[in-house]
Amino acid sequence: MKIYRESLIEMKKIVARLTEQTTDLEIERRVTAIVENVRKNGDEALKDYEQKFDGISLDNFKVSTAKIDEAYDNLPSEIKESLLLAKKNIISYHELEKEQGFIDTNTPGIIRGQKVTPLERVGIYVPGGTAAYPSTILMTTLPAKIAGVGEVIMVTPPQKDGISQTVLAAAKVAGVDAVYQIGGAQAIAALAYGTETVPAVNKIVGPGNIYVATAKKQVFGKVAIDMVAGPSEIGILADKDAKPNELAADLLSQAEHDVRARAILITDDEQLAQVVSDQVTKQLATLPRRDIATRSINERGFIAVMKSIPEMFELMNVVAPEHLEVQLEDAMKYLSLIRNAGSVFLGRYASEPLGDYVAGPNHVLPTGGTAKFSSPLGVYDFVKKTSFINFSKESLVDDLKAITTLARVEGLEAHARAIEERFNQKEN
Amino acid sequence: MKIYRESLIEMKKIVARLTEQTTDLEIERRVTAIVENVRKNGDEALKDYEQKFDGISLDNFKVSTAKIDEAYDNLPSEIKESLLLAKKNIISYHELEKEQGFIDTNTPGIIRGQKVTPLERVGIYVPGGTAAYPSTILMTTLPAKIAGVGEVIMVTPPQKDGISQTVLAAAKVAGVDAVYQIGGAQAIAALAYGTETVPAVNKIVGPGNIYVATAKKQVFGKVAIDMVAGPSEIGILADKDAKPNELAADLLSQAEHDVRARAILITDDEQLAQVVSDQVTKQLATLPRRDIATRSINERGFIAVMKSIPEMFELMNVVAPEHLEVQLEDAMKYLSLIRNAGSVFLGRYASEPLGDYVAGPNHVLPTGGTAKFSSPLGVYDFVKKTSFINFSKESLVDDLKAITTLARVEGLEAHARAIEERFNQKEN
Repeated sequence: MKIYRESLIEMKKIVARLTEQTTDLEIERRVTAIVENVRKNGDEALKDYEQKFDGISLDNFKVSTAKIDEAYDNLPSEIKESLLLAKKNIISYHELEKEQGFIDTNTPGIIRGQKVTPLERVGIYVPGGTAAYPSTILMTTLPAKIAGVGEVIMVTPPQKDGISQTVLAAAKVAGVDAVYQIGGAQAIAALAYGTETVPAVNKIVGPGNIYVATAKKQVFGKVAIDMVAGPSEIGILADKDAKPNELAADLLSQAEHDVRARAILITDDEQLAQVVSDQVTKQLATLPRRDIATRSINERGFIAVMKSIPEMFELMNVVAPEHLEVQLEDAMKYLSLIRNAGSVFLGRYASEPLGDYVAGPNHVLPTGGTAKFSSPLGVYDFVKKTSFINFSKESLVDDLKAITTLARVEGLEAHARAIEERFNQKEN
Repeated sequence: MKIYRESLIEMKKIVARLTEQTTDLEIERRVTAIVENVRKNGDEALKDYEQKFDGISLDNFKVSTAKIDEAYDNLPSEIKESLLLAKKNIISYHELEKEQGFIDTNTPGIIRGQKVTPLERVGIYVPGGTAAYPSTILMTTLPAKIAGVGEVIMVTPPQKDGISQTVLAAAKVAGVDAVYQIGGAQAIAALAYGTETVPAVNKIVGPGNIYVATAKKQVFGKVAIDMVAGPSEIGILADKDAKPNELAADLLSQAEHDVRARAILITDDEQLAQVVSDQVTKQLATLPRRDIATRSINERGFIAVMKSIPEMFELMNVVAPEHLEVQLEDAMKYLSLIRNAGSVFLGRYASEPLGDYVAGPNHVLPTGGTAKFSSPLGVYDFVKKTSFINFSKESLVDDLKAITTLARVEGLEAHARAIEERFNQKEN
């Protein structure tokens, strides 16, 4: 792995350069055409695209309940038990995210409050082929169910041999309400606008390739979306006492996802940097996905050697990684130094894949530096808030002068008159 | 006003048609060019655009603290007091929106939690000319400050006679940290990417015209944005006992905003519908902004007469209005029937302009049906969440089998090995 030994200020520039985003206008244009076509022509357009992109001709997109039940019944018990353990822990964590709204009755004559309402219907996107992760189906569906969403619609690209049995079983474990075999930008368009067979949803979540991400961004506004997901990332902060073999293994667990995945180690120990780099090379040799992982490590990974632990945190806050491991002595005490990260793994035994599967916190996380302003997918993504007020006549009188003054300052005479109309003598 | 007397099913179709969104590809293209130019050429591009679009040549975009202080000192006391009352009530309401994070220590050996961190820097957009509302400066800045945001940057288009004194004074009342005289898509690009003089922010909020809204959508992902704002809306539910003159005045308070604003009344009383329609015509005659309000009422407003109160709510939930007035007997009891609305005004004295200024809940609200999935602007918009876990060795052992099983089902061998590496005998 490339090892940098630059100053903090220099490293910040390097990180900014490495993480710069680019927009592909050609993909934008292609996606716009797909979205417009599906919006206008519905199922017919979906059929054309599935034939064209996936080489599959379908009469009916919807997967029958019988097929889903069958997949669940045939699931090997070891996998079933693992999914059920994951489900239990995801639920117990996400229950803590539930919001209650509030009501303020402290001023006589005035009631002010906020109510929390679940979205009516949401769509979850599940990538096809080797990127169809059963764990992600739990991570996207369960928070929606806990929020009280009425209906969760799953879409996933059709496969020559049919949808993976594990994926269908996971859909049943998670409580998905319906599964449609559609993928790509066309699936996002179908969820946003609805077709003859696919119901329109209020929000679309879940990871996907660049076409899916671009389509999500384009339909944003018509529906809500979660953050546009980029390649996976891990940032590790480690001192001289961390175990190089474990750090290398954790770096590779992200690198194997995607050639564009990013694995970063920041340490204050020159020797550790060198040993981890060697370990990465050694462990790569026996990985089934070594071609992907090698490219990710060589093209996008790096190790930075900094002068002190505060400098390490300062640089990592600029990276704002999706996953952050703190492999430092007494890791918990550093929580207050972390500003920007999706999910934090504290201490030697909080290895990143633990969070991918069974720990409970969500694994759909902000990538590409968006942890500076975005949160993990959560129950809060599947509700919206509505404020409300109730005022007595006397309370409105108390505020009348301020309202009419501000309305007229803003040139909005009808606003002022609406209040004054309550106090006009004449009745109409 | 147009009065519909259709069935619920027919009315739902009419609402869907009336609220359909369209995309203007020509504006999209122009905005893309502006954003790219500002991203590449910074201040130089900003100067060119301000000259071109606003006809104003500026050497320095930043408004001096002295100018802001002067505006505040010269503010008429009536306006100052009104702004301070609004500030007090906005703060007391938004304090109730603060989130605390959580920590779960119920399982020995396992710590799971979520921390809440304010965004570091946010930008607020304030439209120019007659749409520069001091009240909106309070509504966007105060929640950010309550959330703990380090720096709030305000941008607003330069004006021939200089920025409005009331706007500058409101910026001081709200606690804005810096004001830049830039507007339009170029201002959004500057906030997203930063220039030599304008600092890059993590999130951009606030209303603007179609260029501003399009630019916000385009930079979404690089930074966070609030929902893309459309024209203002009011939906009123009223029964035979509601006061027609007050309903008409409230409808007009939204209609005067914009020719594209939408004012809707849904009632179960045929006679009320007719009288309100007459009142609207009568009150329009003396409104200073009657040209705007007349077009809004004629082209986009309507009254629907439905069969029952439940039908009225069902239709209004399809409209999902930005502002919803419930002018029904015993209004509070209907809170549970409301699913989709930005802000709800219950009872005769909760007239919509009360919420625009001094009641306390935010007036930056979801428009165009987006209340189906979006919330009022709030303190929650200015923080992000980070999950964290800490596991003991024994707790990781308990989960080892489930993690490695799921990792291998997903074809992610390096994930499984990262966990197993913790328990390898050999030390490296």
